[in-house]
Amino acid sequence: MKFTLDAALANSTIELANWPLCKVLFKNESQFAWFLLVPKRQDVTEIYQLDKSDQAQLTHEINQLSALIKDYFKPDKLNLAAIGNQVPQLHIHVVGRFKTDSLWPESIWQAKYQAQMYKDIELKKVINDLKAHKLVLIPDSK
Amino acid sequence: MKFTLDAALANSTIELANWPLCKVLFKNESQFAWFLLVPKRQDVTEIYQLDKSDQAQLTHEINQLSALIKDYFKPDKLNLAAIGNQVPQLHIHVVGRFKTDSLWPESIWQAKYQAQMYKDIELKKVINDLKAHKLVLIPDSK
Repeated sequence: MKFTLDAALANSTIELANWPLCKVLFKNESQFAWFLLVPKRQDVTEIYQLDKSDQAQLTHEINQLSALIKDYFKPDKLNLAAIGNQVPQLHIHVVGRFKTDSLWPESIWQAKYQAQMYKDIELKKVINDLKAHKLVLIPDSK
Repeated sequence: MKFTLDAALANSTIELANWPLCKVLFKNESQFAWFLLVPKRQDVTEIYQLDKSDQAQLTHEINQLSALIKDYFKPDKLNLAAIGNQVPQLHIHVVGRFKTDSLWPESIWQAKYQAQMYKDIELKKVINDLKAHKLVLIPDSK
C-alpha cells in the first residue's frame, strides 16, 4: 500500500532524509535535538506490527540517528519514544536532551509546553549541516 | 560485570519475570498497564550501547511484553520509551494506555503526576494472573 506521511507530522517538521525504512524528520525546536523516524509503512501504529526485517532495520536507523545526534549536538542524554496517542501513524521520537534545557530532567512530552523555535538563520545552518553530515548521506550499511 | 538493578527501579516496581536479557518489572499504577524492561547489562544507559545481539533480543522481548499487555489489559494504545534522565540505568517503559485513563491523550511522563495505586487485593490478582500468563512463562523462543 502506498505510504503517505501524516499531515500533522509533515506540517510540524522538516524532512531531512529518506532512509530505506524511515523518513527522518526534524522539529524546529531550539531547546532539544528533536528528530522523528517515520517507517514508510501504511496503517502501522505500533512497533510490534512491523515485520522482523523492518524491526531490525528500525533498530539500525535508530542507532544511526542516535550517532548523528550524539556527534553533532553532543547531548547529555538521548530520549526515545513511540507514543502516538494523538497522531496514530507510527513515529519514533529520537531526542537529544541537555542538562541545561528548560525541561530537564522532566520528559519533553508535557501537556503544556510551547516550542521555542530556532531563529531563521540558525535553523538554516543546522539543516544545512545535518544534510551534509556523513551519517545522513550514508546511513544504511547494516 | 555483575548486573545490579538500580535501587530506585527496584523500590518502585514489582519484579514479574527474569527474561534472558531483561528483568520485567511492573509498576503499581492502576490507571495504566505500566511495565519496565531492564537489560541486565551493567553501566549501560542508552539502547545504542547494547551490542547487536542484545538489541535484537531487546526488540524480541519488547514484542513479547507488548503481546502480553495487549492480551491481558486490552489497551487502546501502547506507549514505549527509553528516557532515563532521572534514573540513568537503561530501562524501557512499555505501557498500555486507555482512552479512559486520566492522562489520555497526554504522555504519562508528566512532571506532576501522582500514582494511583491498585487496591491490595486487585494488585495481588493482577500479579498472580500475569505470573501465570503463558507469555511470561515462555517468553523467549526467538
